[in-house]
Amino acid sequence: MPTHLRHLITLQHLGAETLEHLLDRAESLREACAHGTRRIDLLRGRTVLNLFFEPSTRTRTSFELAARRLGADVVNFDITSSSTSKGETLLDTLHTLEAMHLDALVVRHRESGTPEFLVRHAASGVSIVNAGDGNHAHPTQGLLDALTVRQHRRHFDALTVTICGDVLHSRVARSDVHAFQALGVRDLRLCGPGALLPAPGELPGCAFSDNFDSAVEGADVIIMLRLQKERMVATLLPDEAAYFERYGLSQTRLRRAAPGALVLHPGPINRGVEIASEVADGTQSRILEQVANGVFVRMAVLAELLAR
Amino acid sequence: MPTHLRHLITLQHLGAETLEHLLDRAESLREACAHGTRRIDLLRGRTVLNLFFEPSTRTRTSFELAARRLGADVVNFDITSSSTSKGETLLDTLHTLEAMHLDALVVRHRESGTPEFLVRHAASGVSIVNAGDGNHAHPTQGLLDALTVRQHRRHFDALTVTICGDVLHSRVARSDVHAFQALGVRDLRLCGPGALLPAPGELPGCAFSDNFDSAVEGADVIIMLRLQKERMVATLLPDEAAYFERYGLSQTRLRRAAPGALVLHPGPINRGVEIASEVADGTQSRILEQVANGVFVRMAVLAELLAR
Amino acid sequence: MPTHLRHLITLQHLGAETLEHLLDRAESLREACAHGTRRIDLLRGRTVLNLFFEPSTRTRTSFELAARRLGADVVNFDITSSSTSKGETLLDTLHTLEAMHLDALVVRHRESGTPEFLVRHAASGVSIVNAGDGNHAHPTQGLLDALTVRQHRRHFDALTVTICGDVLHSRVARSDVHAFQALGVRDLRLCGPGALLPAPGELPGCAFSDNFDSAVEGADVIIMLRLQKERMVATLLPDEAAYFERYGLSQTRLRRAAPGALVLHPGPINRGVEIASEVADGTQSRILEQVANGVFVRMAVLAELLAR
Repeated sequence: MPTHLRHLITLQHLGAETLEHLLDRAESLREACAHGTRRIDLLRGRTVLNLFFEPSTRTRTSFELAARRLGADVVNFDITSSSTSKGETLLDTLHTLEAMHLDALVVRHRESGTPEFLVRHAASGVSIVNAGDGNHAHPTQGLLDALTVRQHRRHFDALTVTICGDVLHSRVARSDVHAFQALGVRDLRLCGPGALLPAPGELPGCAFSDNFDSAVEGADVIIMLRLQKERMVATLLPDEAAYFERYGLSQTRLRRAAPGALVLHPGPINRGVEIASEVADGTQSRILEQVANGVFVRMAVLAELLAR
Repeated sequence: MPTHLRHLITLQHLGAETLEHLLDRAESLREACAHGTRRIDLLRGRTVLNLFFEPSTRTRTSFELAARRLGADVVNFDITSSSTSKGETLLDTLHTLEAMHLDALVVRHRESGTPEFLVRHAASGVSIVNAGDGNHAHPTQGLLDALTVRQHRRHFDALTVTICGDVLHSRVARSDVHAFQALGVRDLRLCGPGALLPAPGELPGCAFSDNFDSAVEGADVIIMLRLQKERMVATLLPDEAAYFERYGLSQTRLRRAAPGALVLHPGPINRGVEIASEVADGTQSRILEQVANGVFVRMAVLAELLAR
Repeated sequence: MPTHLRHLITLQHLGAETLEHLLDRAESLREACAHGTRRIDLLRGRTVLNLFFEPSTRTRTSFELAARRLGADVVNFDITSSSTSKGETLLDTLHTLEAMHLDALVVRHRESGTPEFLVRHAASGVSIVNAGDGNHAHPTQGLLDALTVRQHRRHFDALTVTICGDVLHSRVARSDVHAFQALGVRDLRLCGPGALLPAPGELPGCAFSDNFDSAVEGADVIIMLRLQKERMVATLLPDEAAYFERYGLSQTRLRRAAPGALVLHPGPINRGVEIASEVADGTQSRILEQVANGVFVRMAVLAELLAR
């Protein structure tokens, strides 16, 4: 490990060496698990608190399992029924939780920048892990996507990766771009309706397109993003069927990609909106492998930040 | 154990040998606990997930305690705030949870057949435990009722068992019938307002009656069912007092039963609606023993399904 | 320990010896933690259930961490989605939980007297811990406040302690009075708007005042109470600014107290209402130490009640 990580907020600027190290660690945890090791007591006596301002049972459960399998105690802090609803400030909540001697706060928040704000004010003994903030970053998702691809493809630098959907509002897309670029991917294509694409300057080194048929051409990896129904209006497309027609991943469209292209999706999927059922359930889908890798990646991150 | 159980969906067709084996296992866990053993590490490293689509703090807590006392990790998956509310299908939820390497899903669902549906699609490593589905089955309740009776009566074949209340909508009644019939009970009486009795063909071998006074006559075991207030309309009875008058278990009515007859109720009880307080709190009541046995039965089931 | 405690409902009549013993135990747990001991298996195999009828993530989390760090299992019983909402009585809930072999119930309830009611009906094996009932008592808060003061001041009998705010509705104030009086404090001043002060007869030995400037004069310890916004009407003060003007702890007002006076607040704080930000974040504030001590005090109480 080149430099010791204390927090994980974004993958941007982390560097290939750090990323590879985290992926290696996740991989060896995966192998240990496959050989029957179900519990490691690396973090025994440590406490991880899930501080979710936005509900997400899937991601919370994944972090909870990761922490428990390392022997840590996990507390779910249900923010909707908490003092913050009584008007306590975010910083007072942070300092209160720190005073209880927690080792890590896993934070999800609607507003971009919240985890970074917490890092700036956190006491020395607490690690902040970003579990998704606004449209800014979702670093463990970026790592698990990279791990899933690495399990099937040897060299990142030869890959074409296409990310399709509501890129503009997607923290997944941003963390994927940062992960794949750092790991060597050179042909990275971002695709979606024009109104749902960010300004090219925000993500240098990527190609932008509103034509999925051409963006998928020859792709080795296709990452489909979840379309939030409320974004439909902005797309200028009348309905889900029209969206699927232009930006959905059908079996026909998949044939334009490289043979055996990997299909990823952060879940939960909208069948028939951004992805056809036959593709989601097909042989090229890596969606459930992503879920499995999510636990190992989060174990690796927590072990990296907390183990001494 | 005659055949190895992988799931527990219903008690129907399980057979006396399997049931007796599970009850024996629950009984020895109860004895170990009485002698001070509070925690057994049989399921250390295993993960049990409570997937409750219908709220039930009591049953969820009973399963949670059972799993923890066997050393398993327990995750409560709060479905109301989960992705299924974002439109994820039940199968996608199942496969996502499987991919996180869970060992058992304890499922409660409003719709009959949901746990069986999950079994048909579950991966090989996951056990499904039915914690109540619609009016279909509640197998651990059937087991805990049988255990409670067995702790007081030696031979099932000599017993008269009367189940009274809203039998039509009761998964408890169905699992009780399956358990007691398999264990040898021959005189099984189902009683309730005509509109709340199932068609006799559905539960062969039972006697049906809308007269509680005669149905309770000479009974050795009386199982009272919870009346859901919203069913009152269907009973053609104007109010709770009128329901209690005809179908409630009063001290007077209890005298018609066999001396020392056992009184059971799955809880939570409606005092003064289906059962008089003096009966619920009386010497013949086994209601709290049922609650205690619930934890041991669930420990036995989880140990049976998961321990290797 | 003079007499063995089975429950903790109020600090009233506990006596200095018992209080000092609990504070000593909390202190040695704090020292063990400071030297790296994160987990003690004193309560392994024991189960603590959090029975919160009033939401309080902070206090619940503090109890949860305390129990886990002693090796106990913790179950959160979410009463809003439980059977009590189906009309189950409080006693039926108690007896049901007892039957599941729980070792302690940590109870918070809107109504004063609920924990005492549960003690009167609890089975012999269950300990009841009051986590706050109505305006009656919050004993672990009283203990943690006393511990915080003891860490900075050697002799209680020489101290002047001023408690300011909505004393009338405050269980914190009552438990603080009981703790500090038992430990030897003689000059105990209760201050607040006249409409928010209890009848002097209720808390003998205290001075009452509606003038904060004089009540704070020479104080060694100042405990500010949280003002619930809905109480504003009763104060006959038009708004928060007017309340702060008369009863808020500003830096100017703090200068009237003894040099280095300790500032306490049970949290969550209303900045600019009962306390100025510069005071809450200032060098005399002990607010975060209170939070840290809360976990140690609760560990001490649970260890005292449950360890054998």
